[in-house]
Formats: sequence, structure tokens, C-alpha cells
Amino acid sequence: MQGQALPGFRDFYPEELALRNHIFTTWRDVARRYGFQEYDGPPLEPLELYTDKSGEEIVQQLYTFQDKGEREVALRPEMTPTLARMVGARAQALKKPIRWFSIPQLFRYERQQRGRLREHFQLNMDVIGEAGPAADAEIMAAVIDIARACGLTSTDVRLRVSDRRILVNELKDRHAVADGEMLGVLSALDKWGDEPALTERRLQRALGDSPERRGSVTAFLGLLAKEDSATVERLLGAPAAEPLRECRTRLDAMGLGDFVTVDFRIVRGLAYYTGIVFELFDAQRSLRAICGGGRYDTLIQEIAGVDLPCVGFGMGDVVLGELLKERGKHAEAPSRVDAFLIAVGAEDVAPVLKLAHELRDRGVAVEYALRDAPIRKQLELAVARGAPRAVIVGPDERKAKVAVVRDLKSGRQRKVALTQVRKGVFK
Amino acid sequence: MQGQALPGFRDFYPEELALRNHIFTTWRDVARRYGFQEYDGPPLEPLELYTDKSGEEIVQQLYTFQDKGEREVALRPEMTPTLARMVGARAQALKKPIRWFSIPQLFRYERQQRGRLREHFQLNMDVIGEAGPAADAEIMAAVIDIARACGLTSTDVRLRVSDRRILVNELKDRHAVADGEMLGVLSALDKWGDEPALTERRLQRALGDSPERRGSVTAFLGLLAKEDSATVERLLGAPAAEPLRECRTRLDAMGLGDFVTVDFRIVRGLAYYTGIVFELFDAQRSLRAICGGGRYDTLIQEIAGVDLPCVGFGMGDVVLGELLKERGKHAEAPSRVDAFLIAVGAEDVAPVLKLAHELRDRGVAVEYALRDAPIRKQLELAVARGAPRAVIVGPDERKAKVAVVRDLKSGRQRKVALTQVRKGVFK
Repeated sequence: MQGQALPGFRDFYPEELALRNHIFTTWRDVARRYGFQEYDGPPLEPLELYTDKSGEEIVQQLYTFQDKGEREVALRPEMTPTLARMVGARAQALKKPIRWFSIPQLFRYERQQRGRLREHFQLNMDVIGEAGPAADAEIMAAVIDIARACGLTSTDVRLRVSDRRILVNELKDRHAVADGEMLGVLSALDKWGDEPALTERRLQRALGDSPERRGSVTAFLGLLAKEDSATVERLLGAPAAEPLRECRTRLDAMGLGDFVTVDFRIVRGLAYYTGIVFELFDAQRSLRAICGGGRYDTLIQEIAGVDLPCVGFGMGDVVLGELLKERGKHAEAPSRVDAFLIAVGAEDVAPVLKLAHELRDRGVAVEYALRDAPIRKQLELAVARGAPRAVIVGPDERKAKVAVVRDLKSGRQRKVALTQVRKGVFK
Repeated sequence: MQGQALPGFRDFYPEELALRNHIFTTWRDVARRYGFQEYDGPPLEPLELYTDKSGEEIVQQLYTFQDKGEREVALRPEMTPTLARMVGARAQALKKPIRWFSIPQLFRYERQQRGRLREHFQLNMDVIGEAGPAADAEIMAAVIDIARACGLTSTDVRLRVSDRRILVNELKDRHAVADGEMLGVLSALDKWGDEPALTERRLQRALGDSPERRGSVTAFLGLLAKEDSATVERLLGAPAAEPLRECRTRLDAMGLGDFVTVDFRIVRGLAYYTGIVFELFDAQRSLRAICGGGRYDTLIQEIAGVDLPCVGFGMGDVVLGELLKERGKHAEAPSRVDAFLIAVGAEDVAPVLKLAHELRDRGVAVEYALRDAPIRKQLELAVARGAPRAVIVGPDERKAKVAVVRDLKSGRQRKVALTQVRKGVFK
């Protein structure tokens, strides 16, 4: 006998699915308002779609196997390679900029940590074929508007934004960090604060036998980590900060500036992003990032051989769902039915079926008992289903061409003409 | 470089996803009207969920492998075992009858035939915990109403219904078929007409050295196969046909009788169904079945150890999608945006961003160019996006507190007060 899902996989009972659908509906609605079109790809892909170009971490965590046709295949751990493949295959025909979104389920085999999932759903939104900062701002605005559409305000969440090009210039010019050392230094910044020993080791490995440069880089990164405002302002004045300044100007014009903080600690996947990067956090940073994204101008070239700049983000259902539950911002599950129909006797069943079908044809959600039962039992089921009202049909009512409509909260009931009830008018 | 999805897997470009979403939306809407709640489970499940109780054919076609934790796992080939597991785990707490639906993606490795897919999406609707024929009728009504909600009529599709119990009684009583021979005889009926040689072999294997019984059974099955009305009516008069008669009465009361044909050739999975079975076909039977289902009263007992009778069906997205395209009943992809905003000069960009955001906040779908371009270029993009109108903002318009609204079909344009445009009123 089978009792459980695999560890790290979720069963969605109707309560949980109601929250998931609430999140999906919000995602789709914001994407629609921004003129994005939905696409999807296969959850199973050729393994080499990931082994060549994705980060090492992802490949180690793949669900991968050989299918019955001896192809090496993998459950998708992320959507972007599929997106790159699909866009690459029709790169000529698709009108740029491409505005696409998708809500794939993604899979990673992580060593099980407490409650860590091995699957999640992730909204992917991307603008493809536009290199300028207006596209970055558009994507960031969509992130913020999703939070707003969920009922979250600028006191609930913050979009933390950086541009690695600013840091790279600064580290080169002021701290004599060479190109070959750059990734090591940035990966040290990525762990700053959370894992000091790891940070230290990474800096040492990156900069080697140069205690002077290590000292100067450490001091600089320390200022960034504590969000030192003078340092942030100085960096924002640099020529390399022009795209980031433009983004802020545009987000201000949209009225969304309150949600945005420049935070140079945001580094993200080094093998992947090429410009502006951002993450959405709850204001207290008590949860993991709700969303992360940025500009990745070389990936489609690498996967599909077509030169198309991109900016986009991924937003999972898990952290967002936790935050919404924590803040009480998840929608109440709507009532399952608008009316529960009750047949008093056996000869009332056919008229009730007819009425049920007329109402359903009008879009009214209707249920009724599927076996003969006393009225009391039928009313109990109506209440258990959360129906707001019962519509009772008996021989007397049929003769008088009415139905008894009973409010299941107050218990009050009244007769309503059948011609009205048939139209879904219950009073 | 990666060009293609795995054979048998689909990329859903926006046009294809629009049809898929149209089908999903219709499924969800009918399920809602019938008071069904949505659930979902993992696409990856323990292998033994399928090996024990599913049909042999399914197990041979599983996508199965060992995960990094050395568990034997499989991509789900059908939803019912997951449903049985989930219902079994909460059998006490769930109020019966349970009315649940789900839209899982399912996976089968079939030897590639022309265009045969290895994945599809399938609506599953089930009533659990009610053994009477009212539940069967309710499920069949939902099938018919999905067809109707797709714009199909009783001249487009037919629900073909049988009840194996009627046949079993008849074969026992009139043709001396023993219990041990029954499955063989029914499986012969299943291939009747399509594969005469296979039918013949199956009958021979089932009934062995008894040319007399083979003759009588063959004659009987032949009458069923040609839908001989006297035979059908006689069988419908038998005591064992009471549930099927009751279903027809109820479907007639709902006004859906026109869609229903009794067809004793409908056999379906022998290891699975225990009573009424049905399939929905296009009226010409030029396509495979759109949907199949029936009563399966023992499966939850076998999988989860809880005695709960069930009736339900599965309806895939592929055959239904083909039929809708063939009949021109698929929804046109809706316009991507309601308005395309155009900034005349650089100083109009900020006001356009503000207006775009105000409109999106009201639920209006808005797009605009993401780089500076001449008005002509911006209008071209607006047309390419299928926007019904462009809203043009320049210095003169801003001074006069208006915008120029241009109808992109007729080319006519007029000035509209900004206070109106901001509210999404474009005339």
C-alpha cells in the first residue's frame, strides 16, 4: 500500500492547490497587463541542453537517466535553456523584442535538508532582443507589480539591484584586480556576511600572495556589505552605472521607485549574468529571495547560436507562498458551489436535475446529493460543502412554480419563483 | 547547439499554448460549475505505485529510473494511482462524495509511431465514495458539458456507454461462458471490427475446443458490433441493466440524452473497470476517443487499503485539440495588448511610463517600445503586436492634457482627454 509522495515532492490537496492557483492567476494577470505571451516546453529534455552551458551546481543536481531509446535525458532544472532553444529555432520569424513568460515545474535533486523541496513551479518572464536598460526596467517593474498584485507593499518587499559591470570597473581601476581574479572576488562578495570563513578563503584563493590588495579589496567589499551610502552614491556616479541610473529613473517615472534599493552585494550566477542583476526580498530578509534575475546577453548565442540579448527573472511559488501565508495575503478558497439543490422526494429528482443543468449552463456552480436521503442529510452535505444557500424543490413547490431558497448561514428561507431561480436569481 | 525537443515531446509556442489554455480554461470552468475541486500530485512517483496495480501495458511504457537516493521512480503515466494514494491518506477526514479534478501532464514511452506523443495533458474528474448510478450520470454529464462548452453539439460528438455487468450476465446465461473465459471473450469484443484476425485468435484462445460455443459467441458479438437495435434493447431490459437505465433517465432529465448512445462494444481496461464504461467520440469516429472512463470500485482498496467506490474519466488535450481545430471551434488568440503607447520625443518617455503604469494598474494590457525610435517604427511594432490602438503622447498633447488615440485598423485618430485615457477610456 502506498502512503506517501517521494521526499521533496508535494501533494496538492485542494486547499494547497487553491493557493497555487491564486499565485498562478496573479502571475498570468500581471504578465498579460505587460503584453507578455505564455509559452511552455517539455519537462524532459536532452541532457546536453544542460551539461554544456548551465552552472556546475545545476548539473550535479540533475534528475537524469537513459530513456528506452538510449537517449540521455534530464528533468528540466531551469527554463532558460528551453527558452533559448525555442527562440533560437524561430529567431528570424519572431518579432523583437520578444516578451514571453512561462510557469514550468522545475526539478533538482538536492541532498534533503529540512523541508527542502526537489520540485517547484517558477514564473519565468523574459524580454529577448533588446539590449537597452528600458528592457531591464520593464522586467523589474513586472516583478514589483506581481508583489503589488499579491497585496504586498514597499514596506513588505524590496527589490535589491546591482550591476556587476560597475563593480568590475571599480575593482580593476582602484584595486588592481586582474580579469582572471574577478570571478573569485565576486564569488567572495556573494557569501559576504553569511559565511565569513568561506569569504576569506575565496579572497585568498582569488588574490593569492598579495596581502595589500587583499586588505584593500576586503575593506571595499566591507563597505558594500554594510550598504555604506557614500560608497553606493560614488559608484552610482560612475560612467558604468548609466544603465542602472536609467533603470531607476524609469522605475521612478512608473511610481515604483519606493520598492528599489541599490545593493552591490547582489551577485548571482557568475557564469550566466552579464549586466544588471536583482533579487526581490521580504523587507526583513527573514526568507530566501522571492525572485532573482538580470541581464544575460550571451546565453542564447551559446545554446542556439543566435545573438540575442536577454533580460529576465525566475520567481518560485514556494517562498512567495510562505510570505503570503505569513502576511495573511493569500486569497480565501472561494465557495465551492453557489447553490446546493435538494429534492424532497423521489419524484422531485428529475426536476432538480433539470434545474441543476439549467443553472450550470448559466455558469452557476451547483451540487446536489447523489443518493436519496432525508432533507436533513442533504442540508448537512450542503453546509459541509460551504454552499451559501440550499434550493429545495418538493411537490408543493413544483405545483406553485416556486423553490424554497434557504440561506445556510442565517437559516432564513423564502419562496422564489422558479422562473427567477432558473436564471440564477435566488431572491 | 540545441535545436529540438525530444521525439514525442511538444514545444508550446504562444499560438499552441493559447489553444492549450483555451482547453484548460474550459475544463476548469465546467468542473467549477459541477462543484469539483482541483488537486495535483507529483509528476514523479515511486515506481511501485504503478507496478503493482496498473495494467501491464502501462508498466512496459513507463519512464522509469533510479534517483540519486537509489529509489526506483517513474514519471506518472496516469493520475488515478496518485489520486488513490492521496484520498487513501485522508480517507477519514474527506467528506464524501469527494468531487475532485486535476489536469496532470502524463508520460508514456511508446515506440514512436507517426506523430504519436510521449506526453499529454489529461483532465481527470472523479466522484469518490458513491456507488450509485447517480454518480455515473453526473460524471457523464460533465463529459458532455465539456464538449458543449467547447462549442460541440450532439451532431459533432457521441458518448458511447456500456456496462460490462450486462454482457457478463448474458455471456454466462445464454452462451455458457465460464468466469475464467470472460476476460478473453471481452478482449476479443474490444478489437472487433478493427482487427478481425486478432479477434478470432482471442476467441479461440478464450473458448478453446468448442466450435459450437465459439459460433454462438461470435454471432452474439457480431450483433453487438453492428449495434443491432433489437439486441441492444433486449439487453437494456435485463435486471443487470438497471444502473445503465437509471443513468439514461438522469441524463434525459438534464436534457443531455441526445448525446448518448448505448454501445456494448465499449470495453476499456479489463483489469480496472468494474461497471459502467464510456467513451466520447467524434460522430464520424474519424479520430481516436476524446475521452474514456467508467466505474472502478476496487482500485482505491488495492492501492490504499480503503474501500471507496469511484467513477471518473480522463480526457486528453490532443484529440480534443485536433477536433476543435478541425471544426474551427478553437478560440482565436486574443489580442496581446489593449493599447500600444507611443512617446513622440525623449521628454515624453517619462509621462508615457507613468501612463502605462496607471493603465496596467487598472488591468489594461499595455506595451510600448523599449528603445527610442521614430513614431513610424513605433507604430509598426504596435501593428505587429496586434494592438487595436496606439496612444500617442507628444509635447503638444501634454500641454493640452490630451493624447492622440489612433485606431490601428481604420487609421482614424482623435484627441482624447488624458483624464479619460488614464481610466482606460480611449474615446
